[in-house]
Amino acid sequence: MSDQAFLSWLHQAIPLTEAMQIDEIEYSGGQLRLGAPLEPNLNDKGTGFAGSIASIATLSGWCLLTLWLRDRGIDADVMIAKSEQRYLAPVTGRLEAIASLPDDDVVEQFWQRFQEKQRARLPISVTIGNEKVLFELQGDYAAVLR
Amino acid sequence: MSDQAFLSWLHQAIPLTEAMQIDEIEYSGGQLRLGAPLEPNLNDKGTGFAGSIASIATLSGWCLLTLWLRDRGIDADVMIAKSEQRYLAPVTGRLEAIASLPDDDVVEQFWQRFQEKQRARLPISVTIGNEKVLFELQGDYAAVLR
Repeated sequence: MSDQAFLSWLHQAIPLTEAMQIDEIEYSGGQLRLGAPLEPNLNDKGTGFAGSIASIATLSGWCLLTLWLRDRGIDADVMIAKSEQRYLAPVTGRLEAIASLPDDDVVEQFWQRFQEKQRARLPISVTIGNEKVLFELQGDYAAVLR
Repeated sequence: MSDQAFLSWLHQAIPLTEAMQIDEIEYSGGQLRLGAPLEPNLNDKGTGFAGSIASIATLSGWCLLTLWLRDRGIDADVMIAKSEQRYLAPVTGRLEAIASLPDDDVVEQFWQRFQEKQRARLPISVTIGNEKVLFELQGDYAAVLR
């Protein structure tokens, strides 16, 4: 499935992703970028709504682990288990969330455990902001073989 | 401003609240309930989308502190600074977030500091789920006098 086909599927399967007008997805193995225009995601102050920021960040980690597992031929239910979020400065342009896998040894541990138990948890970090980090999320995502 | 008027203002000021179809707000001084139907907030598994859950929970704490300050004649910018979220079980019905103020002494400390410095932070906890807690958020909200 291409990135574009996955995005179309997201819009169909999760209506809020269409309401947020998520229009950009780029998966590169170890990272995933998810983007949306600011306008449908504004707050009352004319900057990014914290709810939209939390939502696109949470979703970007979910997409990263879902696609990473599909790369390995695995169709898994992926769920966020917990997260910590820090809102460092207002988001004044497009919402661009970048989700990143942890260090190789942590990924390897996750993969070994998943193959053994058909379920495992992986920590994923997400940032919004280019030159300056405006927001960060540290999430634990659970994957369970379907 | 009545709860209903505040809800109409939310829909206008923050478009995602309309997309989520947030249709219920009930503020009682120490708590605030924010509700939305499941349908516009579904995920691909037919349960509550984590992004919608994070969003309505984050917003409920924001509404609680905003209205609590308005009760005291204060028009403040309220922003979430950080939060921790735990997703304990799928949400299978309406999303009903209940935000609660902390203990009286913590609220009193916040209020003293706000009056002194025109800015202060308050921890607010939010849960989703009635008999069983399905989701919890612990957030730090900053208020700054306008």
